[in-house]
Amino acid sequence: MIYLDNAATTVVKPPEVAEAVAAAIQHMGNPSRGAHARALGASRIIYETREKTAAFFGCKRADHVIFTANSTEALNIAIFGTLSRGDHVISTDLEHNSVLRPLYEAEKNRGVSLSFVRADRRGCISYEEMETLFRPDTKAVVCTHASNLTGNMLDLKRIADMAHKRDALLIVDASQTAGVKKIDMSGTGIDILCFTGHKGLMGPQGTGGMCIREGVEIRPFKMGGTGVQSYSKVQPEAYPARLEAGTLNGHGIAGLSAAFDFLNRTGTENIDAKEQRLMNRFLDGIRGTEGIRIYGDFRTERCAIVSLNIRDYDSGDVSDALEQDFGIATRPGAHCAPRMHEALGTREQGAVRFSFSWYNTEEEADAAARAVRTLAAEE
Amino acid sequence: MIYLDNAATTVVKPPEVAEAVAAAIQHMGNPSRGAHARALGASRIIYETREKTAAFFGCKRADHVIFTANSTEALNIAIFGTLSRGDHVISTDLEHNSVLRPLYEAEKNRGVSLSFVRADRRGCISYEEMETLFRPDTKAVVCTHASNLTGNMLDLKRIADMAHKRDALLIVDASQTAGVKKIDMSGTGIDILCFTGHKGLMGPQGTGGMCIREGVEIRPFKMGGTGVQSYSKVQPEAYPARLEAGTLNGHGIAGLSAAFDFLNRTGTENIDAKEQRLMNRFLDGIRGTEGIRIYGDFRTERCAIVSLNIRDYDSGDVSDALEQDFGIATRPGAHCAPRMHEALGTREQGAVRFSFSWYNTEEEADAAARAVRTLAAEE
Repeated sequence: MIYLDNAATTVVKPPEVAEAVAAAIQHMGNPSRGAHARALGASRIIYETREKTAAFFGCKRADHVIFTANSTEALNIAIFGTLSRGDHVISTDLEHNSVLRPLYEAEKNRGVSLSFVRADRRGCISYEEMETLFRPDTKAVVCTHASNLTGNMLDLKRIADMAHKRDALLIVDASQTAGVKKIDMSGTGIDILCFTGHKGLMGPQGTGGMCIREGVEIRPFKMGGTGVQSYSKVQPEAYPARLEAGTLNGHGIAGLSAAFDFLNRTGTENIDAKEQRLMNRFLDGIRGTEGIRIYGDFRTERCAIVSLNIRDYDSGDVSDALEQDFGIATRPGAHCAPRMHEALGTREQGAVRFSFSWYNTEEEADAAARAVRTLAAEE
Repeated sequence: MIYLDNAATTVVKPPEVAEAVAAAIQHMGNPSRGAHARALGASRIIYETREKTAAFFGCKRADHVIFTANSTEALNIAIFGTLSRGDHVISTDLEHNSVLRPLYEAEKNRGVSLSFVRADRRGCISYEEMETLFRPDTKAVVCTHASNLTGNMLDLKRIADMAHKRDALLIVDASQTAGVKKIDMSGTGIDILCFTGHKGLMGPQGTGGMCIREGVEIRPFKMGGTGVQSYSKVQPEAYPARLEAGTLNGHGIAGLSAAFDFLNRTGTENIDAKEQRLMNRFLDGIRGTEGIRIYGDFRTERCAIVSLNIRDYDSGDVSDALEQDFGIATRPGAHCAPRMHEALGTREQGAVRFSFSWYNTEEEADAAARAVRTLAAEE
């Protein structure tokens, strides 16, 4: 099978990821619970992974790296833990439901008001329009680093500068970019960076987290055992325990640690360059073919995602044909990004998404292009 | 090393658990995202694990099994998702902070009132006292199945009958019993059963969940992508999507599935019997030794946990000596169970906990008993 659904999850991982997880399952104790070798070994692996995460994303403090089950959880913690009644938030049409649904909940039940920067038919936003949306009560901008549907990226530096001029926070969903694009949260001015482990980082499912800039206060989301300050009725004040409750996914985190080693050895710039070459090769193979409509902006830096439709065919039918007739795995439908589909005009049709990873090959990109041309040529 | 900290996490797992996780990391797609073979394969594994979980715990509907990162998350979802302003809750002194801290938060900030059934110096509660705590506004009893400190178990059937007579829910923390004690939530009358995967179930860290009785309504806790109903501004109404947001820990769930197979093949009654034999052997080896104080009630059914102190020695020092001089891993200190320590009178000293698993041996129990006797004989 040619797997081109890497924006949903990468299925080919560096072999050391599975090895590290399997090893952890066979020997790891419960971190922060007890002081024997197995517990201390677990604590050490987890702390080292915090350090690797902080270094990887330019977060100044390893103890401000929080581990979560996925980026959705990190975004929920960030959104519900920073916003209060009366706050205003700016977001964009590019967002995934992992940003939208917590924001809608905050709007409906927690007295938060929302403004969205509109995207055009190419999936681009206007930063000038964003600038006009700021209000004295704007508490945060919550936005994605890249659309999971079009692959378009946002200029986080520019948004950070706008936000910080008004003392607003910048909360970023890096689900599509972590591991592929260089992210320097301190240099860029990201206040809270939310990431998932199982996509571009090529780690296990069940891993993810957030990096918090020093000085940013986030209220606890879950409460429970932390292995420290057992007699306190509330979560410990200090990060990371403030935002982590219960036993961490130490086994998964051991795999994430191995994934960071692979990424550091390989170089995200090399990974990005290869994915871009594959995307462009695929694009070159289908460009100009009659009946194909490609979404997104290919003039600036982007993720290796190509979403398209063929004529007025249902995207689910096209995706099924790609798999059954050509052995190519893609993702059709709505992609949990309702505002993006509205902007692109693909609410009914959805879109077929091709997303590339480090482990794809030129032959696979060529095969995908041939398949799309063949389907477009059929009546 | 002789590992006797199984109540914190089991470090020896059935070999097929690590194998299943490693295999999943190498081939599993993202469940509910896309319809290609890798995504469907992931959905299938997860649905099968829901079915195994439901069958294992006597939950009538597989789609009422929710997967979470651990039991703490499940308890947070259950507590915050069922309680509303004005509700009263009954809990007990046996509880872990995973129950206590969400309840304290609900009391402090969400208008919920709490009553606790006191435990005596043996760690037992009076069901007659519990009966007196019910009020017309009692919405739920939230309690553990077994204390993580003493191993004492609660009579859930009796509590369920009391609760249901008043239309109150029974929410159970089965962290210490799942996988070891037979749990039939339908027969017992448990409304929400919260469990973790990495202890008695012998699955991976990062797994756990809750089984919900049909008809019990729990509000969403996290919001985000579900792969279905992308255009809805709120979480889908139907379980399990209502309470699951973002990509599940499919890799871990594959390991949990393998763990259920092992448990079903081995028989929880056999596992329980073996653990009880090991606990009793250890107890026989230390009983009557001068200077040892053992906590908990050994007259009725219990978990294979023995917590003790030696003279007035700091429990941390004893635990350190057990590891350094005898190679035995135990857990000292406060065990995230502050009310239990208050009841036992061990707030300052903590306690040294020995907890047994299927993979421990008689030789290990004997060695632990010898070590305790040796330490007790030292001045």
